Parts: sequence; C-alpha cells; structure tokens
Amino acid sequence: MEDWKSTYRLLTHCKHFFHRRLSPNFHNSKPFCTSGSRYHCSQPSELVKPYIGNYQQEFQTFKHLQVSLGTNPWNRCRNQYRCFASQATIIQRRPDFSTISSEDLSYFKNILGERGVVQDEETLDAVNTDWMRKYKGTSKLMLQPRTAEEVSQILKYCNSRCLAVVPQGGNTGLVGGSVPAFDEVIVSTSHMNKIISFDKVSGILVCEAGCILENLIAFLDNQGFVMPLDLGAKGSCQIGGNVSTNAGGLRLLRYGSLHGSVLGLEVVLANGTVLDMLGTLRKDNTGYDLKHLFIGSEGSLGIVTKVSIFTPPKLSSVNVCFLACKDYASCLKLLLEAKRKLGEILSAFEFLDHGAMDLVLKHLEGVRNPFPSSMHNFYVLIETTGSSESYDREKLDAFLLHSMENDLISDGVVAQDITQASSCWHIREGIPEALMKAGGVYKYDLSIPVEKVYDLVEEMGVRLGASAKVVAYGHLGDGNLHLNISTPQYDDKILSQIEPFVYEWTSKHKGSISAEHGLGLMKANKIHYTKSPETVQLMANIKKLLDPNGILNPYKVLPPSLFTKN
Amino acid sequence: MEDWKSTYRLLTHCKHFFHRRLSPNFHNSKPFCTSGSRYHCSQPSELVKPYIGNYQQEFQTFKHLQVSLGTNPWNRCRNQYRCFASQATIIQRRPDFSTISSEDLSYFKNILGERGVVQDEETLDAVNTDWMRKYKGTSKLMLQPRTAEEVSQILKYCNSRCLAVVPQGGNTGLVGGSVPAFDEVIVSTSHMNKIISFDKVSGILVCEAGCILENLIAFLDNQGFVMPLDLGAKGSCQIGGNVSTNAGGLRLLRYGSLHGSVLGLEVVLANGTVLDMLGTLRKDNTGYDLKHLFIGSEGSLGIVTKVSIFTPPKLSSVNVCFLACKDYASCLKLLLEAKRKLGEILSAFEFLDHGAMDLVLKHLEGVRNPFPSSMHNFYVLIETTGSSESYDREKLDAFLLHSMENDLISDGVVAQDITQASSCWHIREGIPEALMKAGGVYKYDLSIPVEKVYDLVEEMGVRLGASAKVVAYGHLGDGNLHLNISTPQYDDKILSQIEPFVYEWTSKHKGSISAEHGLGLMKANKIHYTKSPETVQLMANIKKLLDPNGILNPYKVLPPSLFTKN
Repeated sequence: MEDWKSTYRLLTHCKHFFHRRLSPNFHNSKPFCTSGSRYHCSQPSELVKPYIGNYQQEFQTFKHLQVSLGTNPWNRCRNQYRCFASQATIIQRRPDFSTISSEDLSYFKNILGERGVVQDEETLDAVNTDWMRKYKGTSKLMLQPRTAEEVSQILKYCNSRCLAVVPQGGNTGLVGGSVPAFDEVIVSTSHMNKIISFDKVSGILVCEAGCILENLIAFLDNQGFVMPLDLGAKGSCQIGGNVSTNAGGLRLLRYGSLHGSVLGLEVVLANGTVLDMLGTLRKDNTGYDLKHLFIGSEGSLGIVTKVSIFTPPKLSSVNVCFLACKDYASCLKLLLEAKRKLGEILSAFEFLDHGAMDLVLKHLEGVRNPFPSSMHNFYVLIETTGSSESYDREKLDAFLLHSMENDLISDGVVAQDITQASSCWHIREGIPEALMKAGGVYKYDLSIPVEKVYDLVEEMGVRLGASAKVVAYGHLGDGNLHLNISTPQYDDKILSQIEPFVYEWTSKHKGSISAEHGLGLMKANKIHYTKSPETVQLMANIKKLLDPNGILNPYKVLPPSLFTKN
Repeated sequence: MEDWKSTYRLLTHCKHFFHRRLSPNFHNSKPFCTSGSRYHCSQPSELVKPYIGNYQQEFQTFKHLQVSLGTNPWNRCRNQYRCFASQATIIQRRPDFSTISSEDLSYFKNILGERGVVQDEETLDAVNTDWMRKYKGTSKLMLQPRTAEEVSQILKYCNSRCLAVVPQGGNTGLVGGSVPAFDEVIVSTSHMNKIISFDKVSGILVCEAGCILENLIAFLDNQGFVMPLDLGAKGSCQIGGNVSTNAGGLRLLRYGSLHGSVLGLEVVLANGTVLDMLGTLRKDNTGYDLKHLFIGSEGSLGIVTKVSIFTPPKLSSVNVCFLACKDYASCLKLLLEAKRKLGEILSAFEFLDHGAMDLVLKHLEGVRNPFPSSMHNFYVLIETTGSSESYDREKLDAFLLHSMENDLISDGVVAQDITQASSCWHIREGIPEALMKAGGVYKYDLSIPVEKVYDLVEEMGVRLGASAKVVAYGHLGDGNLHLNISTPQYDDKILSQIEPFVYEWTSKHKGSISAEHGLGLMKANKIHYTKSPETVQLMANIKKLLDPNGILNPYKVLPPSLFTKN
C-alpha cells in the first residue's frame, strides 16, 4: 500500500502542456533551434515518468468497473474466472496440491519467525489481488523470507509437501502471473531489498531481488549511472519481478532487453537448490548460460533472489520532441530516418494515433493539445540521450529539419525544459489512464513486424465498426503495439469479435501475442499462437526437469493440460 | 582451404605505420585536431581488421612447433592428447558409440546424394584438424546437408545408431570444440549458406547457419547496416558457429553479446526434432526463451541451422586513436572517462602492455612504433563510431584534451585516414601473430573484474621470473584479458607453474576461465573454476534431457565424467 502512496505523490509533478510551437516560417528559419535556454536534464530518470503511478486512480477505476459489470467472480473459490479483457477461461485447482496445515504454519514460523509469516486478512486481500483487479486468489498465507537460504528452506519444504507456491514481487503484472490462482502460498521477495555492491569502473550493480526499481534508478543516478530498464510501474515493481517477467519498458530501444544487460542471477529451484549464477562479468563462455532460462519464465522455474546487472553511465543531455505525421507510412519513414540520423543518441521512439490523442485530451485533466489548431492522424514522441548537450541538440535539429523538408512531419514541438519534456511524456504515458476513464477497455500487448503494425489496427476498426473505438499506441521503435479497444461498457459480443481474431491475425503475421507483459494466467493457453508445438513441448519438459511436482506458479505460462497426470 | 587463401590475401592491405604525432605544444594547440582531411570511413567493416587472417602463417608456425616438440600426438587414435598451452589430459573414447558401417554410408548417400558425403582423405585431414593444430580427430566421414530437414534426418539416424556427431562451421575455434575428439561424424554447415531475408525498416537479418561472417558484414554494409559482431576470423567463421560459441569479438563493447542481438534460431535436436524458434521480433515474452540455451553451448545441445539477428544502422563517422599511459591505473581511469565522455559513440577500448608492443615491433614486418622516441608501459586503442563526423571528432578531441590535462595519457596519435586507422588496429591485432613468431606461447582467455585484470599479469610475471615473458592485451572495455606466456620453446615445467595457478587465481577473483573462446575439449574439465557444482549439475541434466544418448559433440563443454554410465 505504501508503494501506491509514493507513486501517487509523483503525480503532482505533472504539468500543463507547454505552449511553444513551430513558427509558421519553419522552412526558412530552422525553428526547432530556438534562442531560449535548452532543455538539459541532469537527472534523466526524472524525465521519463511524469505519469508513473496513477495506480491508486486506476485501482479505484477498476473497482468501479467491477461493480458496473454486476458480477463478482472473486467469490468463486474453486474455479478461477478471468473476468474481462479476454475471453473467459475456467481452470481447476490441481487436486494433488496440499492445503496449509497447522504443522506447516509452525514449520514456517520456525524458519522465518512470526514476522515472516503473514496471515492477517487485509494484507492477504491485497496480495491475493492483481494490480488490474482482474484476478483474485484465496491464499491464506504469505511468507516473507529475508535470505536465499530461507527461500531454499521454504521451497524444499513446500516441494516435499506438494504445497503450491506463487512468487510475488511488486505485484504490478498485467496478466495475472503474480497472484495465486487458488490458495497457493505467496512467497514475497519484498524483504530481500539490499543493494549488495556497485562497481563504478564496470558499472555492474548487484542487488537482492526485492529492490524496488525506482530505488535502484535513484541509487544509480547518484552514482552517475543509469538503469537500463525503466517502466511506468517503477515505484512498486521489484527487480526480481522485472527479471522474472523480462520487463521491456521505455529504454529497450536504447539498451536492449534484460537478456543482454543481466549478467548474473541467484535463483532458488523448486527443490530448494540455490543456484549461484551471480556472475559480474560481461563475458563468460563457460558452459550453458542458464540464467536466461529464468529471465522471463515468470517464476515458474525458480525464484530469483539476487540480480547482477550491467548499467551504462548516465548521459547528461536529454532532448524530447513531439511530432505530428499525416499517415502511418510517414511514421515508419521517420523511424528509419531517426535510426540512421540520430543513431547512437536515439533513446525513445513512441507513437500514438488520433484516437489515443483524442482520448487523452478528453479524459485527462491538465493535458493540452500541443497543436491546438488541428488534429493529426499520428503522433510520434522522440527522445535523444547523449553526452553533449549542444551537439546532440544540433543533431536533432538537423534531423527534424530534414524530416520536415521531406514531408515526413506535418508539425512538431521541441521541449525547452524538463517541464515541457514531462508534458510530452505525459501525453504518451497518460493513454492507459484515459482509456480506463473512457469506459470498458480490451487491452492487447503485441509484437508485430513494424511495417504491419497499423494494418491490424485498421482491420480491427473495420471489423468492429461503430460499436467500439480502436486505439493504438506503443513503442514503435521496438515494433511493440499496445492495441486497445474502448467501449462504453464490457460486452461479451464485442469480445467474441476481437478474440481469437486478434491472436490469429498476430500469429499469421509472425507476431507475438505478448511483447512485454508475459503470459501469466491470462494467456497460458494461448502460447501456441506464437510458439511452435515442438518448442512448447520442450518448455514443458524443462519445467518438469526443474520442478517435477509443478509447485512453482502453477497454471501460468504454459497450458496446464501439458502437466496433467494420466 | 579456400578460406585461408581469401583471408591471407587481405594481409596485403596492411600498411606501414603512419608518422603523425602529437605536437609538443599539445596543451596549447589542441593538437588532436589537425587541419588535414579527417578520417572518414564509409565502410567501417573495412576498418577493423587489417590483421584478420594470418591463418596460413599461424598454421605453418604451429606445424613447425609441433615438430620441435618431438612428439606427434595425432598418431594416437584411441586416446586424445591435448598437445600444448594447457596441461595434458587423456580422455577415452566412449565404448558405447558405434562406428561407421557400409549401411550407414548408404543411408547418408541416400539422403544427401554422393556430393553430400565426403570421404576423401585430404579433405578429412583438414576438417579433422583444428585451426591451431592443437587437436586432431580421426573421423572418416563428413556430411554436408543443405537443409534443416537433411540435418534432422542425419541426427535422427545417428541418434538411433548411437553414432557420435561433431557439428562444424568454419572450424576457427581455439579450444578444440569444432573437430572430432575421436571418430565422430562431422556434420558441416558450410552448404547451408543462404541469406533468407533482410528487413530494412527493422534491420533484422535472417540467414542460414553456414553464412560466412564476412559475407554477412559485406551484405549488410551494402544495405547500410552493420553486423553487431566482428572478429579476426570473420573470413572463415560461420554465423552458426558464432552463435553456438557465443562469439564476442570487437563490437561487444558497443552492441552487447549475441544473447542480446540474436532474435531467433532454428535448431535441430539430437533426436531430429526441428525447433522453429526463428522469431524476428525484438520483444517476445511468450514462455521460456529457449534460444539462449543454444547460444554458447558449442553444438552440444543441438545444431543451429538458421539465425535471425538484429543489426543496427551503419554509422558513417569512425575515429581511431592510439594512446600511451604510464600505468594500469591510468588505463582504468581513461576507460571510465571514455565511457562517460564518449558514451554513446565509444565502439572499442582495447589495451596492450609494454611486452605486447615490444613483441609486435620485433616480430611483425612493416609495423612502426607510433611513439618512436620512447616506450611506454601501456597502450590503449580507442575507436568511436557515430552519425556525425564533425561532432564525433570534436567530442573525441575534447575527451583527449581533458585526459591529457588530467595526466591520464602520456602521449597519443589520432588516425587521419583509413590507412592510419588500419595501422593502429594492426598493432593490436598483430599481437597473436607476433607471439607465434616469438616461440612457444601459452594462451589464456580470461574475464576478470576490470580493476584486477593487471594484478594477475604482474603476479604471473613474479612467479615465472626470467624463464618466460608475460604479455597482456585484450578488450579492456569488457574486462577481457588475453594473457599470453611467451617462451623460447614449450616446457612442461613452465606449464606446471602456470596451471592450475592461472585458473585458481581467476576463480578466486570471481573471473571466468573462458571469456569468449568457450570450453571445448581444452577446458571441459575445468568448468568448476567458474561455475558452481549445482549449476554444472543442472547443465548436465539439461544435456541429458536434450540429448539422452550424448551423441552431440561428446567430451566437450562439460566434464565427461558427469555422463559416465554406472
């Protein structure tokens, strides 16, 4: 709960949109270069999250929606119901899992002490419920180990007793992966939150899994380094959870995925074995690189307890511009130009369509249209990060001028200070909040070959007609589309028009049905839309090898049918 | 053989070292900025490999050394002997492996046709022998499939017959991983060498495993993109082998490891299953990311048949400078400064010590000391790559001036054209050749926390005294030390002073005994110096899961004792 408060407080940073616009004589006067003071951010981590945490707000909104649906699926304790945003799936509790006994409680108290064994209803209610309030479990027990050794003792015991376990970090996941499906024991990593070491020469940080991402970002900022990962939930999410879900976020375009930046892990397996793979080396070719198995496996193969990560030096110069494009083809050409012309300083290339901008302007307070005289079909936010303020800005200006001259941009503004930059980011990051306020929303997180991204949006628009509003935004630089279908209220008829069409379309175009959110409970049965049967079978075999009793985060990631005992 | 010729030809590009030096009034006149034309390379791939392939030469040198040792271990056909550069290890051929029968030959000819089944002695002699001539197998058969389906049929058959297999790409490995230990069937990927697709918007290349790295670099260069991997053996090595060994090379500092840039793989498992994981998406969180198991597993878990890789746009501006430092502490401070001040344009930070420079000057023809008036303790080569010639050069100049003022650099030169840049690289890349010419050489490829890298070199120097010359160079930006002990001739007494000390020291300082070369046959039994017993055991379990009969590249990577049947 405390996390929500801290992130909610950050909302007060949101500022009104700034007024500066391109001068009408753009082509003659290089209007992107102004004589005013340039935007210079000595703390880039402050720049890229004016939105960050309207958790509290979304939480309340969801609560309201739940009521308006007129159903309370959380009362079902034996069957798990996925309440909205995807077609309902009923799964059964595995009958071979044990239930908690008083002997179990004594054992855990003996290992962890009273304070590490949480049974009070209010806390359990919160940790049983996912951030979107889409999923709710009925666990009666949360354990809060402080060391890998304690995690090991817990898992060894649970494995021997066939007690199912759900690992939980900041519980900010969007696919129901971090809450119990039924009565699994919740093993929280929150109390393992120490920074272990930081090497300023190599930039390598070693810390415990429960460290909150925002704290790591702040720590590194003080050291003159930057976390290669940043995302909206940073105020609550934990690095162990980030690693376990292979979180993507805002810096992937620049720094790549966690498979590249995570150098080592300590992981506890289902049988209690502590795997020490906590290397701090950029290069190590000794045997199979097993840490990658745990990056993105959503806690179903082991519990991450420590992380070693490579962090690049902080760069002092950050520039942000917000641009309008007449069509999607122009956005694509602009992306190609940005990659080539801005190359090594490009740090974000985000896009939103007309519908997304419209929603933000309608539903978010304090947001003003950067181009008040007209609406455009597409908008692009570009951020550059480099080591030289003047050079980087000149590079950006030259790129913008060239793009204007080649008719790729219809209009544009360049942020002159951190407030203006925050306002740019607020439009892009405010879309999810605006969507929630607009009514019901069906959310899809897709990876699609970048040239085909908008085809799906248009096809979906034709398919749904006037019954729903199709809204698109996302990390265009990575080919990651956040497709949202906004409706006045939830309607199973609309859902059946969306699914499985959206998955089939994505599969047909060799896309991924989960770019960065993972599969969790929501899409465990849909993995075949993206992965071949042979690959899924090998995943299941590896799961059986590492967790023969299947106690770790059951029902998630892979189709439960693969583990049904005959 | 043809590859050696093509790479040998490239040697003729090597030029004499250039004469320009810093003016004596450096501090007053910004001497790094000259009025002459700036170095600008439109084909960066031409820049970073003046050395590339003295394969032919090293090959001959090794042949000579072999004779001078007075022993020919290749005559032993039942026991494999590691002839030098590490302490001898005897391994036994696994008695349960079958030997080739005439029925097997008929079967393979039926699948592949006559041309895909190679039995002629001269070819077999070459493919049985590793590039360093340290290891030689006695295989009587090389198969050359053209499709994954053919690889699948081969492996399915070999698995059923318990015929051992060694996958082979360009056979440029340095640890005996790509040649048979005994009579394994060689499965060559050379005939699978087609580029399948390239997407200019996303920069994603899909190709077959047998594509030669240099061909891919040239192809991408024409498209305006750059391969995120470059290494000396590029004229022979194949992308499938690069992936299977997780090759590091010269661009890792800038573009990260293959775990970050490889997006997808097609792999054939030991039982013939074709695993289609050939995704072309930058973000895909659907289940376990199994491709990482095959990156760096040296062909012991499956044969890579296709690769999908993310390639960044080519940047037009490349600068190279060669600097002298008075001590290792200055090199470290310079590295930190370079990361911070050059940040996004830094593309190489290589170092060599006095001993390495001395050897290059003594043994390589056409190389001149860039600082003829004096020798220095350490030398650093810095390369920047960016999108703006003038800005990048000014950034570099400012960095160099600052470093001079802070006494981090004793002297330095900046290349003014591609010839001068090539000459800088030739010093760094010529070290292995110089070492070979100097006599016997014991080579170690280590990752060590960067601040401790030179401690090992100094300790080794004290340990060996006057009996050997300890020479150090490597990719300092990645903490990768190439430690070489040069002696007039090979001597088991010296070897016993080096090993196991070098491994124990590396292990004690949490380093890796193989930064980028892999373990192969040479270090399969030494994995425990870097990896914990639990991790090694899990590797063995995964090997058993994927290849229960152990037919794929046996005796390599993991200690064979882990697979001994009781």
